[in-house]
Amino acid sequence: MNSPLIRACRREPVPYTPVWFMRQAGRSLPEYRRVREGIAMLDSCTRPELVTEITLQPLRRYDVDAAILFSDIVVPLRAVGVDVDIKPGVGPVVGRPFRDVSDLSQLRPLEPGDVPYITEAVRALVGELAGRPLIGFAGGPFTLASYLIEGGPSKNHERTRALMYGNPAMWHALLGRLADITTAFLRIQVAAGATAVQLFDSWVGVLSPGDYASAVLPHSRRIFDALAGLGVPRIHFGVGTSELLRLMGAAGADVVGVDWRVGLDEAARRVDAGKALQGNLDPALLLAPWPVLEPRVRQVLDQGRVAEGHVFNLGHGVLPQTDPGVLARVTDFVHEASAWAVKP
Amino acid sequence: MNSPLIRACRREPVPYTPVWFMRQAGRSLPEYRRVREGIAMLDSCTRPELVTEITLQPLRRYDVDAAILFSDIVVPLRAVGVDVDIKPGVGPVVGRPFRDVSDLSQLRPLEPGDVPYITEAVRALVGELAGRPLIGFAGGPFTLASYLIEGGPSKNHERTRALMYGNPAMWHALLGRLADITTAFLRIQVAAGATAVQLFDSWVGVLSPGDYASAVLPHSRRIFDALAGLGVPRIHFGVGTSELLRLMGAAGADVVGVDWRVGLDEAARRVDAGKALQGNLDPALLLAPWPVLEPRVRQVLDQGRVAEGHVFNLGHGVLPQTDPGVLARVTDFVHEASAWAVKP
Repeated sequence: MNSPLIRACRREPVPYTPVWFMRQAGRSLPEYRRVREGIAMLDSCTRPELVTEITLQPLRRYDVDAAILFSDIVVPLRAVGVDVDIKPGVGPVVGRPFRDVSDLSQLRPLEPGDVPYITEAVRALVGELAGRPLIGFAGGPFTLASYLIEGGPSKNHERTRALMYGNPAMWHALLGRLADITTAFLRIQVAAGATAVQLFDSWVGVLSPGDYASAVLPHSRRIFDALAGLGVPRIHFGVGTSELLRLMGAAGADVVGVDWRVGLDEAARRVDAGKALQGNLDPALLLAPWPVLEPRVRQVLDQGRVAEGHVFNLGHGVLPQTDPGVLARVTDFVHEASAWAVKP
Repeated sequence: MNSPLIRACRREPVPYTPVWFMRQAGRSLPEYRRVREGIAMLDSCTRPELVTEITLQPLRRYDVDAAILFSDIVVPLRAVGVDVDIKPGVGPVVGRPFRDVSDLSQLRPLEPGDVPYITEAVRALVGELAGRPLIGFAGGPFTLASYLIEGGPSKNHERTRALMYGNPAMWHALLGRLADITTAFLRIQVAAGATAVQLFDSWVGVLSPGDYASAVLPHSRRIFDALAGLGVPRIHFGVGTSELLRLMGAAGADVVGVDWRVGLDEAARRVDAGKALQGNLDPALLLAPWPVLEPRVRQVLDQGRVAEGHVFNLGHGVLPQTDPGVLARVTDFVHEASAWAVKP
């Protein structure tokens, strides 16, 4: 696979900066809202034809350099039998939040037979994509644990941190099981043809570096190590992780995702050598007029040149109220402006 | 005023590290829940006898080195006529969220006559406190703006950032008015006897340093400058602000509050010379057993020694489920451990 995205992840020269957008598929697209009508979120993630259609929708609008499998981070949890659903306007809601060690029995290993729809959708997508990369998708161990412990979305994840501090034995047992499930979920996607993977440890930025290093990193490292031999770039992303960038790379990622709170030039100084970066336009900038937006896109490209490799993306997911026309314009602008930049 | 708290804020030698806790008054105390029964939050903030009682409650339990005026950051907004209320379990809810410049007419200057209950409560408290410092309380301009723009609490403040990027004229007009209101609110508290002030720009950590410097700092600086001649230490706090610490100090604070995501030793390296630090125990640690908690308290004290002055506090407010007995124990431990540390 010689696409610009894969080359940038491997820190090889690229003809232009590759670009994709977290949540490029989903609520910002009218055609997404149409196909989802009357279908619950987790149902849409388990119907291969819908997963395929939704994953491909943004590629019909934008000249992005990758598709990302449409899924939800709780899909593998539900697949192993956890009582979890996505409540519209709320997010994941867990029937029996995890409180003590006995709750760990809700988590068993994930087998390919648990998620046949994933294998089917990925295979169909790889055929449709004709060489364009497909990024596999999974939630990171802290973020998955936070949903199971809080019982749903949470602003500050205090119950999660309290359990992490107060019951390290249960914490490590829980994250160990989640790491196994995530590893299996990503292996299944790669086996079916995914050409890169992104681990979304979205909420891990609530931890200090010391706590991240002892409580989360060993589990993320097991996931990345298990994928090391598969030849696919591994991207690692979380929000508000400016203090954790080095560690999130050191966990075994090839590419470290950066949110908008720190420039890519500074991020490049924080990660170890041998890492590419992904990011980091503030998604709220997509709601601003083009004369405000354009110099900020250019700034991300300029700062990204300090990194050994750069995949242009947002610093978090596309907001539902985003105009798809703006994403199309940003995509083309990134390609053109970065192609000019490498010319003599 | 020669108390340890004021001395630490001024980076003078102290007999022991002073300590107080954000939200030390409030939901974690059964006596608070009793006096609040049947009384709406904003009503409780406008009855001087209740404000006084609630502010003093934690001082009957803990040997903390300061009281902080019990209030809410929307109190001055409601006092100038903004249709805002605190919805139990939700937070501030604004009747007519700010969308365009015409909404600015909802904000007029704050006069002492708008908040007689504040003057009365502060005077009563200063009498009761017999020399122990009373910290005045106000919300910072970004955080106040975020409630007015979002219409209520928000996870990522996207509407706020979108308005900041997309309509800088309205943004600066809004923050200018909020800075005037906040300045007046804090002046009233100091005039009545408050011996320090804390500006809570709680949610400003969603901004990058560049955006903070251009969009918020000038307004915060006006607030701090207006208080400069009053002789009270000025504390400046926000959550997730590890990238902003230098700027939040440079805005004119004497003391920079730090959340738990970055150690005080590292924070001390990030702020300019001439700043004290406040913080930064993770409030979720108070839910852990003492053998877990004690070394973390000690670590905060150790790292705090790198700062020119250190006020022990949490990295954010006391969680409602916190055992008051633990806060009492932490208070005593901080005093004892830090007193030992300065002895030969």
